[in-house]
Amino acid sequence: MKDLLESTHPFISAKQESLLKNSSIYLLGYPFDGTTSFRPGARQGPYALREASSNLETYSPYIKKDLTDFDITDLGNLEMFPGNYNMMLENFQTLLSNFSFKDKNAHLITIGGEHSISYGPITHYLKEYDDLLILHLDAHADLRDGYLGHHYSHASIIRRILDHFGHGHEIKQYGIRSGTKEEFEKMEQLGSLFTDIRDLTDFLELIPVERPIYLTLDLDFFDPSMMPGTGTPEAGGASFHDFIKIMKILSRKNFVGSDIVELAPILDPSGISNSLAAKVVREIILSLNVNQD
Amino acid sequence: MKDLLESTHPFISAKQESLLKNSSIYLLGYPFDGTTSFRPGARQGPYALREASSNLETYSPYIKKDLTDFDITDLGNLEMFPGNYNMMLENFQTLLSNFSFKDKNAHLITIGGEHSISYGPITHYLKEYDDLLILHLDAHADLRDGYLGHHYSHASIIRRILDHFGHGHEIKQYGIRSGTKEEFEKMEQLGSLFTDIRDLTDFLELIPVERPIYLTLDLDFFDPSMMPGTGTPEAGGASFHDFIKIMKILSRKNFVGSDIVELAPILDPSGISNSLAAKVVREIILSLNVNQD
Amino acid sequence: MKDLLESTHPFISAKQESLLKNSSIYLLGYPFDGTTSFRPGARQGPYALREASSNLETYSPYIKKDLTDFDITDLGNLEMFPGNYNMMLENFQTLLSNFSFKDKNAHLITIGGEHSISYGPITHYLKEYDDLLILHLDAHADLRDGYLGHHYSHASIIRRILDHFGHGHEIKQYGIRSGTKEEFEKMEQLGSLFTDIRDLTDFLELIPVERPIYLTLDLDFFDPSMMPGTGTPEAGGASFHDFIKIMKILSRKNFVGSDIVELAPILDPSGISNSLAAKVVREIILSLNVNQD
Amino acid sequence: MKDLLESTHPFISAKQESLLKNSSIYLLGYPFDGTTSFRPGARQGPYALREASSNLETYSPYIKKDLTDFDITDLGNLEMFPGNYNMMLENFQTLLSNFSFKDKNAHLITIGGEHSISYGPITHYLKEYDDLLILHLDAHADLRDGYLGHHYSHASIIRRILDHFGHGHEIKQYGIRSGTKEEFEKMEQLGSLFTDIRDLTDFLELIPVERPIYLTLDLDFFDPSMMPGTGTPEAGGASFHDFIKIMKILSRKNFVGSDIVELAPILDPSGISNSLAAKVVREIILSLNVNQD
Amino acid sequence: MKDLLESTHPFISAKQESLLKNSSIYLLGYPFDGTTSFRPGARQGPYALREASSNLETYSPYIKKDLTDFDITDLGNLEMFPGNYNMMLENFQTLLSNFSFKDKNAHLITIGGEHSISYGPITHYLKEYDDLLILHLDAHADLRDGYLGHHYSHASIIRRILDHFGHGHEIKQYGIRSGTKEEFEKMEQLGSLFTDIRDLTDFLELIPVERPIYLTLDLDFFDPSMMPGTGTPEAGGASFHDFIKIMKILSRKNFVGSDIVELAPILDPSGISNSLAAKVVREIILSLNVNQD
Amino acid sequence: MKDLLESTHPFISAKQESLLKNSSIYLLGYPFDGTTSFRPGARQGPYALREASSNLETYSPYIKKDLTDFDITDLGNLEMFPGNYNMMLENFQTLLSNFSFKDKNAHLITIGGEHSISYGPITHYLKEYDDLLILHLDAHADLRDGYLGHHYSHASIIRRILDHFGHGHEIKQYGIRSGTKEEFEKMEQLGSLFTDIRDLTDFLELIPVERPIYLTLDLDFFDPSMMPGTGTPEAGGASFHDFIKIMKILSRKNFVGSDIVELAPILDPSGISNSLAAKVVREIILSLNVNQD
Repeated sequence: MKDLLESTHPFISAKQESLLKNSSIYLLGYPFDGTTSFRPGARQGPYALREASSNLETYSPYIKKDLTDFDITDLGNLEMFPGNYNMMLENFQTLLSNFSFKDKNAHLITIGGEHSISYGPITHYLKEYDDLLILHLDAHADLRDGYLGHHYSHASIIRRILDHFGHGHEIKQYGIRSGTKEEFEKMEQLGSLFTDIRDLTDFLELIPVERPIYLTLDLDFFDPSMMPGTGTPEAGGASFHDFIKIMKILSRKNFVGSDIVELAPILDPSGISNSLAAKVVREIILSLNVNQD
Repeated sequence: MKDLLESTHPFISAKQESLLKNSSIYLLGYPFDGTTSFRPGARQGPYALREASSNLETYSPYIKKDLTDFDITDLGNLEMFPGNYNMMLENFQTLLSNFSFKDKNAHLITIGGEHSISYGPITHYLKEYDDLLILHLDAHADLRDGYLGHHYSHASIIRRILDHFGHGHEIKQYGIRSGTKEEFEKMEQLGSLFTDIRDLTDFLELIPVERPIYLTLDLDFFDPSMMPGTGTPEAGGASFHDFIKIMKILSRKNFVGSDIVELAPILDPSGISNSLAAKVVREIILSLNVNQD
Repeated sequence: MKDLLESTHPFISAKQESLLKNSSIYLLGYPFDGTTSFRPGARQGPYALREASSNLETYSPYIKKDLTDFDITDLGNLEMFPGNYNMMLENFQTLLSNFSFKDKNAHLITIGGEHSISYGPITHYLKEYDDLLILHLDAHADLRDGYLGHHYSHASIIRRILDHFGHGHEIKQYGIRSGTKEEFEKMEQLGSLFTDIRDLTDFLELIPVERPIYLTLDLDFFDPSMMPGTGTPEAGGASFHDFIKIMKILSRKNFVGSDIVELAPILDPSGISNSLAAKVVREIILSLNVNQD
Repeated sequence: MKDLLESTHPFISAKQESLLKNSSIYLLGYPFDGTTSFRPGARQGPYALREASSNLETYSPYIKKDLTDFDITDLGNLEMFPGNYNMMLENFQTLLSNFSFKDKNAHLITIGGEHSISYGPITHYLKEYDDLLILHLDAHADLRDGYLGHHYSHASIIRRILDHFGHGHEIKQYGIRSGTKEEFEKMEQLGSLFTDIRDLTDFLELIPVERPIYLTLDLDFFDPSMMPGTGTPEAGGASFHDFIKIMKILSRKNFVGSDIVELAPILDPSGISNSLAAKVVREIILSLNVNQD
Repeated sequence: MKDLLESTHPFISAKQESLLKNSSIYLLGYPFDGTTSFRPGARQGPYALREASSNLETYSPYIKKDLTDFDITDLGNLEMFPGNYNMMLENFQTLLSNFSFKDKNAHLITIGGEHSISYGPITHYLKEYDDLLILHLDAHADLRDGYLGHHYSHASIIRRILDHFGHGHEIKQYGIRSGTKEEFEKMEQLGSLFTDIRDLTDFLELIPVERPIYLTLDLDFFDPSMMPGTGTPEAGGASFHDFIKIMKILSRKNFVGSDIVELAPILDPSGISNSLAAKVVREIILSLNVNQD
Repeated sequence: MKDLLESTHPFISAKQESLLKNSSIYLLGYPFDGTTSFRPGARQGPYALREASSNLETYSPYIKKDLTDFDITDLGNLEMFPGNYNMMLENFQTLLSNFSFKDKNAHLITIGGEHSISYGPITHYLKEYDDLLILHLDAHADLRDGYLGHHYSHASIIRRILDHFGHGHEIKQYGIRSGTKEEFEKMEQLGSLFTDIRDLTDFLELIPVERPIYLTLDLDFFDPSMMPGTGTPEAGGASFHDFIKIMKILSRKNFVGSDIVELAPILDPSGISNSLAAKVVREIILSLNVNQD
C-alpha cells in the first residue's frame, strides 16, 4: 500500500499513519487537476491546505469542539500522476478495497484536487450506504454529460455520480449559480436545487438522525471574494456564515464523510483561500458523527 | 475605419465584425487610462475582460437568457494612444459619426479604460435620446470640475456629462461613498444620489417602459473584496446581488446602452476581478432591450 | 527625542512635526513584528498605510467631517529594531514620558506593527484614565498567558493588559472568532465578549458621554475578503458597515485614543488592505473627541 | 477544419488565416500541459506569448531582418482539451494531414504547451525530411522511457521521437543540465550532447547548407533568471547571447521548422518570460529559410 | 515653489530641503508615465527607489566613497499630474528657472518616471553647457519622430533632444538592442552607437577631464533578469559590472548630472529592481564631480 | 528530544529520522528570522527549500554522484519561536549536546532562517575541529559589532564567530560586495576577502586534503537575478557556475559541514529561488567528505 501514497506534513493534530492503524477519521489528499478547463493548480491544494492548517486553532467556537479530542489519521497524498485520471482512480480504489468505513465506524475526508476526484470516494460511499444523501455545495451544476473530451471531467462529476445511484440514494444541491440552460433544467427535473439557504436548512433539519449524509464541497461554492484561489470563480457565492449554519445542523446528524475540492493555491498570493479551506476542513471534522468517549 | 480599431479575441459568443455589419449589440474596447491619479492599469481592462469571458457560461440563471440567442458584434478595441485623451476621443467620434443606435435599434457597450472614456459614448447617446436617463453606479461622485490638470479627468467625468444635459436628460447615482464635501453637496442639490438599494429599485420600477436608460458602471462600485483589480478601491461597496437586482429591473425596461470602466487587471493577480467584470457584461447584454425573434 | 523617531511620508493632511508642537491628534508608527507566529510583515504596515492615505478623500461621508478641519501631527515612526521588543517598548515609553494626553486634551493613534505593540500605548492610557473602557476589535482573543516563548506576544497582548487593570478599567471585545477553549472560557468569565453587533452597539450607546474610550483594533477583525493583508486571517469576519456603525457611536462619545495593528502589506498584492486600513484611520481620527473651534 | 482551431489575437505582423491560404510561415498554438509534473500552466503559453509580441519591434538588430517583410499566417490555437493528450494529438494530425511543408516550401512554428506537444510536429517533419537534423535546446534530457504513468510525457518526449528515427535522422542536444544518470549515459552513447557552446557552433557551421534543420526549444534552456516562467527551472542555463549565436548560424542554413515549449506565464508575474519568449519566436521566424522576393 | 513639489521620504543620507538651501547634489523625483505604450507604472518609481535606498549601505566598495561624506538634498517629487505632460514639464522648468547648476557647482539627479521626463533636465543642461556630452544607456534607441500620437513620447525622447543640439553637443549610446530599422540607420548615420563595452570605455577614457558629461539612464539598459520592473524589458541587456566599469571612468571625469528613468515597481513583486535602481543612484552620486573638502 | 523538533516533508531522498539513528549526513531546518532588518520571511526557507527539492533530480551532472547512494537523515525543523533568538539557540545546543560529528564521521547541513542562525552550528564545529577553515560566501561582510540592538544580529554573525576563533581557525570570504567602510577595512586587515574567483579557487586547491572545511552560505551571495527571494538582495552577485567551481574543489577536500541561509520564499513568487536553493543543497550534500562503500 505504501507505494500508492506519498507522505506529507500532517493536518493539524492528525497523526501520520496508514489505513491499517485504526482511527475514526482519515484524511487523504488527492492531488489531481488534469481535466481543469480554465486555470490549473488544484493539484497543489492538499499541500497548501495542510500547511495553512498549522496556523489554525484546534478549537472551533462554532461547533464548540476541539480537534485534539479526536482520533485523526492523515494518510498523506495519493501518489501524483499528472494528467492520468484512470491510474489515480485505480490507486484510490486499490487503497480502499476491502475497507469499510461503515463497518469500522470510520470516516473519510478526501482533499482535492479538482472535482472529478470525488468520483472515487462517492462511489465507494454509495456502495456502503443504501440510503446515502449527498449534499452538493458548489457554484457549478457539474451535470454536463462529458466535457472537453473527458467522460469523467470536473464539469460532469455529478452526472457521473448519478449513473451509480441506487433506489435510496438522493442528491441535494446548493450554491449553484453557473451552468448551461440544460443543466438548470436537469436540476429542476431532479428537484435537487435549493436557491435559498433557509429552504436548505429546513430540509436538513428534517432528515432522520440515522440517515447517512455525505458532503461534496467544491470550494468555489464560497464567494470569490473570500475564496479567490480556485480555478473557476463565480461571483455571487455563499458566505462563511451560511456554511457554518449548514455545519451546525450536520453536526447533529449522521454525517459520514466528505470531500473538499478545487483549492488552487497559486491563484491566491494572499493565502486567505488556503486558510479558509483549512478551517472548513476543521469544521467538517468536528461535525462528523464520531463517538467520543 | 479599419485604422481606428485593433482586432482582439472576441467576447464569448460574439462575432468579430465591423460596424457596417448589422447587429443588435456592439461591443467596443476603449483602452485608455491616461488621467488615472492613483494606480494606472485600466488600459488592460478590455483585453482581460474578454479573455476571462471565455470561461463564462453563456446562460444567465439570473436573467434566464443565453448569449447564443443574441446577435453580438465585437468591434475590437479603439487603437491605443497612451496618454492622448483627445486623439482617442476624436477617433471614437469618427468611428460613430453618422451611426445612429436609435435608428438601427442597436446598442453599444463600451469597455474601458478609465471613467473619462465614458464621455464619448454618453454624449453620443445624449444626442440621440432627448429623454435619456443615466444611471451612474460608482464609488466616486466624479463631479469635480477638473482634477489634477485635466478638464476631462476620470474624477470629473460626470461633471462634464452634465454640461451636455438637455431638458429631458436626467442622472441618478448609487454606490457613491467617496468624494469631497462639495461633491456630496452637489449631489444633494441635484437630488441624484440614492443611498439605499430599495429606494433605487423603487425608483427604477416606476420608470416608464419606453424611457431610454443608459448605465455607466465604474467597477469600483462593487466592494473591493470582490473587485480588487481597480485603481481606487473604496471599502463598503455594493454586492453582486444588488447589481443583479438592478439588472432584473432594467431587463424589463428600455435599456439602450452601457459602459463598464476601471478594470485594472494587473492589480488583482487572482483574476476574480476579470471574471466578475466579464459576468457583469454578460448580464448587461442579456438585459438590453433587444427584439428577439 | 529625535533619535527615537524616523521621519516618514505623513498621513494625508497631517503635518510632520514633533511632540513638542502642540496638536490635538498625534499619529505614531510602531513598526514591529518580531513575535508574529505565522506570516511576518506587519512591520511594513505604517509605511503602506500612510502611502495609501494619499489617495483618500479627506472628507468622510459617514462621519460627515473633513480631516482638513483638524490639527493632526504625524510623528513618524518609532525607530525600527527588528526582533527587539524591549528596546522598542522602552523607546516608546521614553518618547511619551511626562507627556499627558489627558492634560493636553490630545489624542494618540498608534499604527502597528503586530498586536504586541499595543502594550505601550494602552498602559500609558490606563495610567492616565482611571475609568478607561477598552474596546477590543479583533478576530483573536489574545488572552494566552505567553505564546511560543514570548511573555509579551501578539497572542497574549490582552492578557498582559489585564495585568495592569485598576478598579475602574474595563474591556469589551467584539469580532473574536478564534482562540483556545480556555480563552473562550476566560471571556465568558470576564463577560467581555459580544457576539452580536446589536448587543455591542446597544452597550456603546449607553456609555456615559464623559467616560473615556480607547479602541485597540486588530485589522484581522475584518473579514479576510476585504483585509487579506494580515498575518492570521480568520474567515467569518466583520464588515465595513459594522465598523462604521461603531464609529458613528464613538463619534458621539469621549473617544480618546486608538491603535490599529496587524496590517501586513506584502501579503496583499492588490493593495485593498492598505486602502481599507487608511480609511479606517481616517474614520477613527474624525470620531475622536476633539474640540473644533 | 474550423472546429479544430480556436482564433486568437495574432502574433505581431501575422495575419489570422487558415492553412488553405498559402503562406511561407505558419504559427500554431498547442495549449496542452496535461502531463506536467511540477507546476502546470504551460497551456497559457500561446496566449501570453502572442500578447507580449505586440510590444516587440518587428525588426531584429541581430538577424537584421524585419517581420513585416515576411508572409506569416497565425493559425490560432489548437482547440484545448485539458488533460486529453490523445485527442489533441489526433486533432493536430488531422489538421496537417495531406499538408506538406516541404512541397509548399512552407514552415511551421508550434508554440506550446508542455514539451510532450513536440511529438506531433516532429514526427510530421521526420516523415517529410529523410535527412532531418533535430536541434534540441533544453535543460532536461527528456529521455526517460515514460514518466509518472505517461508514455508520451514531457519528460520522455525525446525518447519517443527516437522511436521514429530513420536512417538519415539525427539529433543534437545543448543546454541539458538535469536528468537521471541513465539519461546522461544515454546521451553519451548517442553522442548527442554538446556541453560547450563553441563545440555546438562549430558543429552547426559545418552542416551542409541544404540539410534540413528543425529546432525543438524548451524555454527552460535559458537561465531561470531570465525565464522564471517555466515549470521546472534549472539553475545554470544558457544566455540570450548563446541563443543569438545559434540563430545567426541557422539563418544561413536550411532551417525548416521549430517548436517553442514550456512557457508558463502564471509563474512569472513580471512578464519578462513572456517578452523573452516572444522575442525568441521573432528571431526564429527571421532565421527560417524563406525565399524573400 | 512649494506648490510645485510634494515632500517624500528622502533618499538615504539626503536631507529634505528646498533648492534655496545650497547643496552640491540635488535629487528630484519626476513621477510621470503618461505616454508609456506597453505597461504603465513608472510614476511609482521615485517612491519605491527612495524606499529601497533605506536598506543600502552608504559606502560603495566600487567607487570607495561614502554618501555620508557628501552634501545631498532631496527636493522631493514634482507634483504629479497624471497624463499631463505639458503641465509637469512647465512646473519642472519653473522650478529650475534662474537656477544654474554650472554656476553653483551643483548637480541634478532626476528620478523618473518614463523616459520622456528627461526632456526637462537635458534641455536645461544643454543650455548651461556648450560642450555637453550626453551618454545614453538604454535598450531602446528612442529616436522615433513621435510615437502613438505624442511628439514628446518616451520613444522619441532622444530625437527631441537632438532638436536642441548646438555645435559642441554630442551624444553617445550604448546598450541599444531594440528599435526600428530606421532608428538603427539613424544611429549609424550619427555614429552614436557603441555595441561593445570595450569600445565605449576606450572612448570614455579619452574624454578630456574638463568636458561635462551627462548620463541619461533608462533602467531597461540592464538585462531584464536583474531589472524585471520596467515597462518594456528587452532580453540581452547589460550587466551590473558593465555599469560599474562605466561609473569608475565617469568618477574620474567631469560628470555633471544624470537622470534615471523607467523603474516600474509594480511589475516586480520581488523588489530586486527597486534595490538595483537605488544602488545605481548611489553609484551615480558618488561618481559626480563634486569637490569634497 | 522530540519536543525540540517539528517534523516536515523530508528533503528529496532523505529519511525522516532522529539523531539517534546513525547516518552520515543530517539535515536540520532552523526557521528563525527575528533580527532581519529589511524584509522578513527567511523563517519559511526550510519549508520551501524541501518542497522544491521534490522536483530535483537526485543525480548531479556536475559532481556526477547521486543522492540515492547516500545515507541522509532529515531531522526536520527546530521548533519555531518567532523573535526568540536565545530560546532557539539553546534548543539547538541541547539537541546537539554530546553529539560529535567528528567522532561519528557525520555531517550537518543547517538550513536557515537568517544568517544569525549560523552561530549555533559554527561554534559547535569550532569546538570539534581545531583547524577548521570557514568558507564564507555572502554579499555582506556581516562583520558589524552588533546591529539595530542585537548582539547576535544577522549583520554581525561573522564578527560573533571570530570571538570564538582558536589558534588554528581561519576564515575566507568571497562574494562580499556590501558593507560599511569599517567592515571592508576589517576584511583587509584580516586578509580574509577574495575578490576574484580565480584567486579563491587557487587558494582552495592548495588546502591540505585532511583540513576540515565548513561552508557558511548566505544565498544573497548569488546575483539577485537568480535569487530574488532573499531579504537584502545586492546587485553584482556570483553566478551558479562560480558556485559549481567551488563545489568541485570542495568535493575533493575534507568538506565537513555547511549552513545555507536567507532564503525568503515569499519575496519570489516565481519560485526560482527555492529551486536554486534546493539544488545548492544537493550539490553540497554530494560534495561532503562521506565514505561511500
